[in-house]
Amino acid sequence: MMMSRYRANVMANAVTHTHLLKPRVSLAAMGGVRDLSKMTFEKKKMTEENGSSGGKADQGNKGEQLIVSYWGVKPMKITKEDGTEWKWSFFRPWETYKSDLTIDLMKHHVPSTLLDKLAYWTVKYLRWPTDLFFQRRYGCRAMMLETVAAVPGMIGGRLVHCKSLRRFEQSGGWIKALLEEAENERMHLMTFMEVAKPNWYERALVITVQGVFFNAYFLGYLISPKFAHRMVGYLEEEAIHSYTEFLKELDNGNIENVPAPAIAIDYWRLEADATLRDVVMVVRADEAHHRDVNHYASDIHYQGRELKEAPAPIGYH
Amino acid sequence: MMMSRYRANVMANAVTHTHLLKPRVSLAAMGGVRDLSKMTFEKKKMTEENGSSGGKADQGNKGEQLIVSYWGVKPMKITKEDGTEWKWSFFRPWETYKSDLTIDLMKHHVPSTLLDKLAYWTVKYLRWPTDLFFQRRYGCRAMMLETVAAVPGMIGGRLVHCKSLRRFEQSGGWIKALLEEAENERMHLMTFMEVAKPNWYERALVITVQGVFFNAYFLGYLISPKFAHRMVGYLEEEAIHSYTEFLKELDNGNIENVPAPAIAIDYWRLEADATLRDVVMVVRADEAHHRDVNHYASDIHYQGRELKEAPAPIGYH
Repeated sequence: MMMSRYRANVMANAVTHTHLLKPRVSLAAMGGVRDLSKMTFEKKKMTEENGSSGGKADQGNKGEQLIVSYWGVKPMKITKEDGTEWKWSFFRPWETYKSDLTIDLMKHHVPSTLLDKLAYWTVKYLRWPTDLFFQRRYGCRAMMLETVAAVPGMIGGRLVHCKSLRRFEQSGGWIKALLEEAENERMHLMTFMEVAKPNWYERALVITVQGVFFNAYFLGYLISPKFAHRMVGYLEEEAIHSYTEFLKELDNGNIENVPAPAIAIDYWRLEADATLRDVVMVVRADEAHHRDVNHYASDIHYQGRELKEAPAPIGYH
Repeated sequence: MMMSRYRANVMANAVTHTHLLKPRVSLAAMGGVRDLSKMTFEKKKMTEENGSSGGKADQGNKGEQLIVSYWGVKPMKITKEDGTEWKWSFFRPWETYKSDLTIDLMKHHVPSTLLDKLAYWTVKYLRWPTDLFFQRRYGCRAMMLETVAAVPGMIGGRLVHCKSLRRFEQSGGWIKALLEEAENERMHLMTFMEVAKPNWYERALVITVQGVFFNAYFLGYLISPKFAHRMVGYLEEEAIHSYTEFLKELDNGNIENVPAPAIAIDYWRLEADATLRDVVMVVRADEAHHRDVNHYASDIHYQGRELKEAPAPIGYH
């Protein structure tokens, strides 16, 4: 119930905020102001040039705030449980969760059909150059792999979304479930960025890999979602393996068990004194959940069904 | 606070569920079962052929459920405030909201720059064939337009997502905000589908239009997000106009004010006796909110800033 009380708190803030907001909006509108944004733009530049912070309270504000008061789009004031202000703009308290570490990490889908075997060996093959490139630099490896791991969910979500629009049919919640996966993988990246900073050739590699993988997976999903989801299932199985290796390196002291980044503590609701090890534990649990979701999605296709026929595992982590 | 208690209720359900789930998962895993999904597939077909509902409680279940018990991905049991079961799989209680009907519908961004004018007249030009095709069949028109309206948010979200991954940078919440827009527009479609059923040539038109618009907008966003968001801002201004016309037709009796579809009553938390008119009112308010968000996004670009620099209006409706 703790989490639900937390949501309550957040919602309360959100609600009061919108009430506070209305007068400002209507005021701006009543004034018949039409191109305030551009005015702001010029004003902004001007103030930047002569360094003055502007005159009247309303117009003296920074550019965004003035636009905001015109368009009525104002960031919510969100507080944490302890009353302190929520400092992340790219994820909100109601997206955070306590990871389920009891999930079975050994579960594996034995490739039986030719398609399964193709998916399995594609992943196994992809693992090879990765091992070669990173060797035992697991921090960096994790960071790089998450830039790829966040792609399939986005592609799947986007394709199911368009299909849902074209066919005038609901999606069974799979659009949201797949986008949640992409979002979660991106949060992994945001976390590991704090631990390992990428250098120029790693950044270059990411751009190349994303370019290739995005299009390859996109085509793969168009041709056979059954194959695409199975492949991600196996990718996640490999990810679990890599993070287990990561943990070994932390335990035998080859990688320093630094304190967990603030973002990780807030996102997975970790203890204030959590360490990198705790982070790797929850990230590995996340990958295990994604493994389940994707093998499940593939299994649905194997039954000659469509995803929309089976309710999607939304918020499964 | 009503909504927050509601969330609490939902979360409570979700939490208890995951606890109940674990034993089943581990059992299946302990059994060393490896390719249950395929077994299920065959079993499924078999039972379908000879019509028997299968033997043991566990294996006698329908295919999905057996897979589910293996992968541990089981749909949550969600109840509504009144304790009755939540019947929608493609949206959940915590995505529903009470629309803010007080939003200013007349707000307009006067095109000042050449780019603004281009965006403005592109939209005005697109309106012309639309009027010609649909004339005053606003129900059908709304349904068709929502299949297009749900595209920009998905493209924007997907592009900002990939950029965030490539550049190892956070997004200011804009990925979620834009995907929320796409999700909301899709819910409009799901709603109007209940009111106006598309015929074969309308379905064909949707596929064509989506094919063209998706790629055009994708390129547009790649070249100039500033332009893309401005254009959507104007599209939404036109949408507000169309829905206002829709309301007139309802009020003068040219369109029958039928009861609101069940999906709309649950999604916008309308009264049980809500009518089509109430639905059009909340949908129009949604479009007004999207207008604000997109003009705002464009304004941020006009200031030479990036979206991530201004916190995104998540849950703004």
